[in-house]
Amino acid sequence: MPAGSQLLVTTDLCIEGVHFRREWHSADCVGHRCLARGLSDIAAMGGEPVACFLSLGLPAQLPKKWIDGFLRGMLRLAGQFRAPLAGGDTSSAGKIMADIVVLGTVPASQAVLRSGARPGDSVYVTGDLGGSAAVLKSFYGKKAIAAGSAHRHFYPVPRVEVGRWLRRKKLASAMIDVSDGLSVDLAHICQESRVAAVMEESAIPIAQGATLDSALHGGEDYELLFTAPPKASLPPKIADVAVTKIGEIKPQSSGRYAIQIRDQAGRLKPVKPKGWQHFR
Amino acid sequence: MPAGSQLLVTTDLCIEGVHFRREWHSADCVGHRCLARGLSDIAAMGGEPVACFLSLGLPAQLPKKWIDGFLRGMLRLAGQFRAPLAGGDTSSAGKIMADIVVLGTVPASQAVLRSGARPGDSVYVTGDLGGSAAVLKSFYGKKAIAAGSAHRHFYPVPRVEVGRWLRRKKLASAMIDVSDGLSVDLAHICQESRVAAVMEESAIPIAQGATLDSALHGGEDYELLFTAPPKASLPPKIADVAVTKIGEIKPQSSGRYAIQIRDQAGRLKPVKPKGWQHFR
Repeated sequence: MPAGSQLLVTTDLCIEGVHFRREWHSADCVGHRCLARGLSDIAAMGGEPVACFLSLGLPAQLPKKWIDGFLRGMLRLAGQFRAPLAGGDTSSAGKIMADIVVLGTVPASQAVLRSGARPGDSVYVTGDLGGSAAVLKSFYGKKAIAAGSAHRHFYPVPRVEVGRWLRRKKLASAMIDVSDGLSVDLAHICQESRVAAVMEESAIPIAQGATLDSALHGGEDYELLFTAPPKASLPPKIADVAVTKIGEIKPQSSGRYAIQIRDQAGRLKPVKPKGWQHFR
Repeated sequence: MPAGSQLLVTTDLCIEGVHFRREWHSADCVGHRCLARGLSDIAAMGGEPVACFLSLGLPAQLPKKWIDGFLRGMLRLAGQFRAPLAGGDTSSAGKIMADIVVLGTVPASQAVLRSGARPGDSVYVTGDLGGSAAVLKSFYGKKAIAAGSAHRHFYPVPRVEVGRWLRRKKLASAMIDVSDGLSVDLAHICQESRVAAVMEESAIPIAQGATLDSALHGGEDYELLFTAPPKASLPPKIADVAVTKIGEIKPQSSGRYAIQIRDQAGRLKPVKPKGWQHFR
């Protein structure tokens, strides 16, 4: 490990039937998405990926072609982000399951945490939201998938370069990736930072083919959600990715929801965190 | 990370029905065993455990009591070895599955690898072998389990202190833990070191209630198997654990098995690696 750096460790469990379906997602896409989740976690702390590890459970009857495709998708992304596969474990299993560990580094005390948001900070998001949920909705409804925004569902690009830029410039006071849904992930920042937030409905960047509801609660967008002090000057794009101001951090006050949204008519409405929650 | 140290990373996947059965193993015991596998891997490199991470997949109907028991067993062992649970992931799953990552450190270039055995080195093993397989055999045969050696099957103690001692004294030329079975794990050393080995049947420490066959091929004993130069002087016990010389490393030669065993009558017989192998 480089001297003066801290180690980042993230684990992400992907299980067939929960995180992907073989009839919807190609093996190559599953391998890509499993690793993208971990790289996105490293990005959300402003870290540099170092290596990845894979624990893979496989049904005995699974065609070797599927495993080859999975590894091809995973290793291509690992190569792009210089996070070589450095070890792991294999086992027989009833359903396909992959647990991916990503190690990263960040200069000591410079990791961007979830706990640094302060009242008055602006709330930003990269890219657009809800596209991944729109693709899943099409699958469930057996409808054709619009080509435009679908690619980011199947092959999300972790925002490592944006996270690194924000950490180096010391611009982000708190950061998380949008993996469970904007409402859930902003609630994590509010909880850890002991603050509240107000979003502007008109400002939320909604992906092509998606709705406000899927942008708020959809999940799996793997964009970065971050806060920055009011005086911070943010460019409209970072590393070629659009950055949009969507709201403001407020002081915590009891008796109301931590997150509210101002609709087009100027009315404030509470936003319940209702993105992806396991065991519901 | 301490300056001048290298990072060790190990991942171990434990799946219900493959690595444990709920009717045979208590939740507390499953939690202990899952983490013991990872700690044993760190021990086998002469490393110091630093932290552990848990990715846990759970069926929606699993009683909370089971999860509490699992965590109690895991966290008790984590406390004993100062490897605090530092993160992880959870998901719903069809069957219980736990992937445990253990991080460790070792002073740079001092990790004991599998590749350092040389012809003339002696082969040693800690404790005794086959006890875990004997317990499983009793389960399969629906027979009563002998109390004596059973505890080590349910609550194996990773040989971290022995591994550390051997690394500090620079006595071990190669090391591995006996997780898949002596025949398989010695074959790993022979393969990585490009050598062969001869074991003495009369020298193999067989656990109470076990047979030579289960000592050779049983697996899950979590003892350390290591080699040391012929001049190395090894005590009969290290950190209160018996150490037994069981054989010798030989030069690799084509046309015969890498591992042979000399029986009580002095005849050399080939030993095929046939411990635990997935997908068979």
